[in-house]
Amino acid sequence: MMTEHTVKAFDEDITRLRGIIAEMGGLAEVAIQDAMQALVSADEDLARQVVERDVKLDKLESEVDELAVRVIALRAPMADDLREVIAALKIGGVVERIGDYAKNIAKRVGRIEGRKRFEPLTLIPAMAEVAAEMVHDVLTAYAARDPVLAREVIQRDDKVDAFYDSIFRNLVSHMVENPATISSAAQLLFIARNLERIGDHATNVAEMVHYAATGTYPPEERDHDA
Amino acid sequence: MMTEHTVKAFDEDITRLRGIIAEMGGLAEVAIQDAMQALVSADEDLARQVVERDVKLDKLESEVDELAVRVIALRAPMADDLREVIAALKIGGVVERIGDYAKNIAKRVGRIEGRKRFEPLTLIPAMAEVAAEMVHDVLTAYAARDPVLAREVIQRDDKVDAFYDSIFRNLVSHMVENPATISSAAQLLFIARNLERIGDHATNVAEMVHYAATGTYPPEERDHDA
Repeated sequence: MMTEHTVKAFDEDITRLRGIIAEMGGLAEVAIQDAMQALVSADEDLARQVVERDVKLDKLESEVDELAVRVIALRAPMADDLREVIAALKIGGVVERIGDYAKNIAKRVGRIEGRKRFEPLTLIPAMAEVAAEMVHDVLTAYAARDPVLAREVIQRDDKVDAFYDSIFRNLVSHMVENPATISSAAQLLFIARNLERIGDHATNVAEMVHYAATGTYPPEERDHDA
Repeated sequence: MMTEHTVKAFDEDITRLRGIIAEMGGLAEVAIQDAMQALVSADEDLARQVVERDVKLDKLESEVDELAVRVIALRAPMADDLREVIAALKIGGVVERIGDYAKNIAKRVGRIEGRKRFEPLTLIPAMAEVAAEMVHDVLTAYAARDPVLAREVIQRDDKVDAFYDSIFRNLVSHMVENPATISSAAQLLFIARNLERIGDHATNVAEMVHYAATGTYPPEERDHDA
């Protein structure tokens, strides 16, 4: 049994864990937005900043790991409390990964030529907005332990997938019609794929949030289209 | 400091943790293969088995969580040992997720009509073979703490992506030419997307294996195409 003191200390630790993860979510969301801004305005300085700032996410993931381990070792939490600490460890890993995808996008900014000719350069930022919102909202759902919002996030992954499909088709026709632009079009395709993966990972987090909040995985909404 | 006894007990725990994860990897690999077999031969019984067997993966993930927590609480591992336990927790989560994708594929088997007309029904199993091999080899790399094999797995993700692109294009043309088959073609597209995600998750595991073995993330090979 935890004493009153341990309970209080545990609650403080969990609050700190959740705080670090909220910070990670915020950084990942900004990384996606800045990578898009850099892409649209061909701003290689901003792109470089996105790449450099990713180190911060790696560090915060290590902080989550360390703090979670300390909580387990010192407070020996049970049942729901333990589930919460493990969820923090796993969610921290996935959010770090989302940051990696944003970094990958930023790295491609300097490799795209003839921006004006690509229609997907309007579709990709719209796709990124949905993906970044998913990241934002899934972290809100995590902070508020809100399984309903988590399920909403899961449903939104369809939109990201639909964007991906439409961008893919558009870029493939573009490549066929303008073989000279294939290399830039391929960069845009990889960028869209990174955004699709961000949506998928936000969905993973949403499922963990749902599980941590209710003890069950969400119903199979996403099977219709995942 | 750990006593000789604790060291031995810790080694045994780690060996068990690695054993459970190896078992999970084996189950995930078989799930992918059986889902493909079910798809190709329209075997809805086998598809149902794949779905039912996924529960086993969920249970094994919980076992990893429980054992990892017990190790942290009882043995208070430090540095490399601790990194190993945390890697097990995170890898367990990702392998469980790979199983979910195989389950999603199996669930679609009953919804496809007019199999003979779809050329991707030869491409998809070939794609699945590469993805299942990635899952197999990344677990071998994990068991052998082999960063070189982990990097090889990461490079193979390109192949999976190339399959996905070619299947996507093929299915889109198919839909345009045969609007009556759109619903079945969409199922195949979702199946290919699930395989693409399996490749991505195997890549994630490979990066964790590389990190656990060397303390550094692999060089940016996958940035060329991720």
